[in-house]
Amino acid sequence: MSGVRRFSADAAGDYRWDSVELLLYKEEGSVPFKDITRQVLFSQPDHAAELRYFEIAPGGYSTLERHRHTHAVLILRGRGSVKIGDDDFALQERDLVTVDPLTWHQFSAASDSPLGFLCLVAKERDRPQLPQDDERAAPGKS
Amino acid sequence: MSGVRRFSADAAGDYRWDSVELLLYKEEGSVPFKDITRQVLFSQPDHAAELRYFEIAPGGYSTLERHRHTHAVLILRGRGSVKIGDDDFALQERDLVTVDPLTWHQFSAASDSPLGFLCLVAKERDRPQLPQDDERAAPGKS
Repeated sequence: MSGVRRFSADAAGDYRWDSVELLLYKEEGSVPFKDITRQVLFSQPDHAAELRYFEIAPGGYSTLERHRHTHAVLILRGRGSVKIGDDDFALQERDLVTVDPLTWHQFSAASDSPLGFLCLVAKERDRPQLPQDDERAAPGKS
Repeated sequence: MSGVRRFSADAAGDYRWDSVELLLYKEEGSVPFKDITRQVLFSQPDHAAELRYFEIAPGGYSTLERHRHTHAVLILRGRGSVKIGDDDFALQERDLVTVDPLTWHQFSAASDSPLGFLCLVAKERDRPQLPQDDERAAPGKS
């Protein structure tokens, strides 16, 4: 519905918006990750895409995974890094990250800063694949 | 292609990114607007959506228009306002704006601040409609 939803930070300073639910990143214990929340900012009927906001607490990280759908990411808050294939990139606010299909990737917040980012994905998308034990040692590119 | 494109500000302090072309908002003189640039941040093959960054200079404004496709907007820089139908909303950084189909809307930067925002749209979308003279006086909702 047309209108404006205000940005606000919660008591801890974490990013929140009016009428946007704070979600867990994934079910606890389902896969390896640490200290992440998820907020779906936009899921418009005509877009076939969703814009989500993820926030990783200091020292936290996302699951190392790959999938056929691509990620389009804009860093909105803080500092951290991203592993894409065999490469590691330091990340600062407003940097853009592209993750191609079936490329292993993992986002990490700095030890002393959260990492908050917008992530654009297709609304209909495949489920992430996790590395097998032999891949986890050195996942590299697919 | 997978990777990171760095954020940087240009000499004037306006937002730019590596490998992202700075475009004119529309052809000069085609419709009423003032002082806007456009940068396409993401247009992924599997998304059917595009994420663009618009920057309106202090005192500038976008065209008053409507269209069937929806806008999903996140304010990234500065201050301003948006007219949606008959309502005016003040805008600050990280506010979210939704514009429904066929709803008249116009973004304006504050007189002393730019207004920069991300705008998510369907990749295939209809062309904007402009108000006729009788609508321009009081466009309201469709």
